[in-house]
Amino acid sequence: MLEQRKPIPVAEAVQRVMSKEITSKTEHIHIEDALGRTLAEDLTATHPVPPFDRSPYDGFAVRSADTVHASRENPLDLRVTETIGAGAVQSVPVLENEAARIMTGAMMPAECDAVVMLELTSEPEPGVMRIKRSFNKGDNISFKGEDAQEGTVLVEKGSVINPGTVALLATFGYETVRVASKPVVGVLATGSELLEVNEPLEPGKIRNSNALMAAAQIKRAGAEVKMLGKLTDDLEACYQSVKEALNEVDILITTGGVSVGDFDFLPEVYSRLGAEVLFNKVAMRPGSVTTVAHLNGQFLFGLSGNPSACYVGFELFTRPVIQRMLGNEKPHLPVEDAVLGADFTKPNPFTRFVRGTASIKHGRLEASPSGFNKSSAVSSLAATNCLIILPGGTRGFTAGDQVKVALLETAESSGMPW
Amino acid sequence: MLEQRKPIPVAEAVQRVMSKEITSKTEHIHIEDALGRTLAEDLTATHPVPPFDRSPYDGFAVRSADTVHASRENPLDLRVTETIGAGAVQSVPVLENEAARIMTGAMMPAECDAVVMLELTSEPEPGVMRIKRSFNKGDNISFKGEDAQEGTVLVEKGSVINPGTVALLATFGYETVRVASKPVVGVLATGSELLEVNEPLEPGKIRNSNALMAAAQIKRAGAEVKMLGKLTDDLEACYQSVKEALNEVDILITTGGVSVGDFDFLPEVYSRLGAEVLFNKVAMRPGSVTTVAHLNGQFLFGLSGNPSACYVGFELFTRPVIQRMLGNEKPHLPVEDAVLGADFTKPNPFTRFVRGTASIKHGRLEASPSGFNKSSAVSSLAATNCLIILPGGTRGFTAGDQVKVALLETAESSGMPW
Repeated sequence: MLEQRKPIPVAEAVQRVMSKEITSKTEHIHIEDALGRTLAEDLTATHPVPPFDRSPYDGFAVRSADTVHASRENPLDLRVTETIGAGAVQSVPVLENEAARIMTGAMMPAECDAVVMLELTSEPEPGVMRIKRSFNKGDNISFKGEDAQEGTVLVEKGSVINPGTVALLATFGYETVRVASKPVVGVLATGSELLEVNEPLEPGKIRNSNALMAAAQIKRAGAEVKMLGKLTDDLEACYQSVKEALNEVDILITTGGVSVGDFDFLPEVYSRLGAEVLFNKVAMRPGSVTTVAHLNGQFLFGLSGNPSACYVGFELFTRPVIQRMLGNEKPHLPVEDAVLGADFTKPNPFTRFVRGTASIKHGRLEASPSGFNKSSAVSSLAATNCLIILPGGTRGFTAGDQVKVALLETAESSGMPW
Repeated sequence: MLEQRKPIPVAEAVQRVMSKEITSKTEHIHIEDALGRTLAEDLTATHPVPPFDRSPYDGFAVRSADTVHASRENPLDLRVTETIGAGAVQSVPVLENEAARIMTGAMMPAECDAVVMLELTSEPEPGVMRIKRSFNKGDNISFKGEDAQEGTVLVEKGSVINPGTVALLATFGYETVRVASKPVVGVLATGSELLEVNEPLEPGKIRNSNALMAAAQIKRAGAEVKMLGKLTDDLEACYQSVKEALNEVDILITTGGVSVGDFDFLPEVYSRLGAEVLFNKVAMRPGSVTTVAHLNGQFLFGLSGNPSACYVGFELFTRPVIQRMLGNEKPHLPVEDAVLGADFTKPNPFTRFVRGTASIKHGRLEASPSGFNKSSAVSSLAATNCLIILPGGTRGFTAGDQVKVALLETAESSGMPW
């Protein structure tokens, strides 16, 4: 008797996964390794930025009160006390009718409240500068704290560190920064038809593309990969391999072997392990056989052996778990409105995730299928940067329709979008 | 006498940089390291995909001619010759009124031309399968070459390798792949006000955020970083450091020291090196002092010492050179239409590149300033994922205006967008 599986909606499947407790580990890393990692603590301004009033230009620091009557007709000469270079501080006070030569970024002398750009001055005699207009208090000063006040949270925990974040980490002296540890995701392939990438093609066989593809998806999602090889067509050996793998990884992905065929051992392996199967059939194309099991806080993702189905299953179910482990409060693919670029006139009872290419044209997002559209397709995946979501039902879709697309190659994420 | 520099338009500045010959190197890397690298050769299908006609389901391979009269009233029994597992090939021919049990992905027996899904069959006695409808030639077969024909270029040289590309590399047996070598970009900071990230703050000084920020930008752009420390305030030492640095890197970035202040030594260093200064003033805000020089095929990018100006100068001028070295025919930031989210009522004669946050809302791109907007600003850079381009002139801009934005965190690139 063939097992009858009951498909559940995608949103419910995702919900079942994400409702499990998902914990993060953290570690300290050097700032030079921080790009792309996820902050495990708020980045707070530990001092004002700038930390002192400073000059934004090369010029002269003046006391504005001295300049009140300066004009073209009535030029004002000020005695220059010294030159304050960037990084230096004044060594003498600036008294009435005096000015200090000051460099870009240098700290203002305490007695001065305006900066005159070098271009607006002349030097009637050595040690004297001349101006021909008045200046107001505060003219051309970068004020202490104008960029950031001490104590302000500038980047929130859970954010991915970009070059701007690195600049802030450096500004505040974070030589190391606490980030979420990368979860380790193991990849086990199943399928007697699978050759390794370095083996010559044989009749009836194909090279294993899923394991390396999944490894790349894992890295793109921010986690670390552990390649665990291939399961054999022997139930006992499969069971042992999976059990051992679980000791080495935070998350285990298998590709293939989750269907109801004679050599699909994974359902039996889950049962023997005592894992809770969260679902084994999802109302989606491709990837309806995607299975997720859970055991002692660990997830086992049984992805399809079909490349496109494997790809989609990973992005919908595995990626958000990785992202949550990285501390991302919005762990899902960002889903946006887009204009559909092709017809899908045949309705499908299941929700379709069509591998697509999205681009912004004249400010609007457009998405078209990236190529051959079967669950077994591999060629279209290279051009795929989004999944076009076509809800299941009795209607087809035509080019120009407004649809939702899940974007794969942006730095953004979303909350529960399904 | 203060040097008078003539600002040139951004487009012309970019043009001067990109009109220089920019050469790439290539290397072979292992497929497991390929994610994010740039293909240095076309990825061509070396065999059809699938490589043979195969079954997309678990079921039975049949000869459709045998099934012509099969119906609910007139069920057809076929003798089962054998089970063909995935990866196996038939061992006996399938003769008239025979069928072969076949697994998902297994090669079709030569005599069969349709597959019957397991669910549509019954087993009236061991070794016999029964169907109650007819099947047509070609039903449920994944045909040889339907996904990709041999010889087709599936991914073009110059493309960034994504997980789908990795799947294709694996499919066609590329254990190693030829990619563009990452250019090595050196970073030298200037400025006596600069403390290292691990030094405590001192009056008048700030920590060096530009060098580490530029390092992160270099990595994000796909290149390798060489941190070269800090130049001193001594012309001869500066000259020696820059000269030595050029032996170690493909591209040299300096931050600060390009202005016309007393301690801005880089113009003199370029002159002593005999480097051709492509420009030293650009009609843009921030970053108008950005200087680019060229010497024996090497670029020297003199970026501003102000964080925002440094950031923008890198993305406009350095990034495309790196991308071109990586073999990208479209090396520039993608520029898209967006709706402006804030007022910029004060006109500016120079083109402004406002650090902004862009997001897609209801299918349309919107962009707002990401925070404090001065060339010295650092706090806003962490939230920056685009540069909002406000052309110079006599008019201001208001929220709701259509503007162009250059996107920083997408996998896309563009041709000359300025």
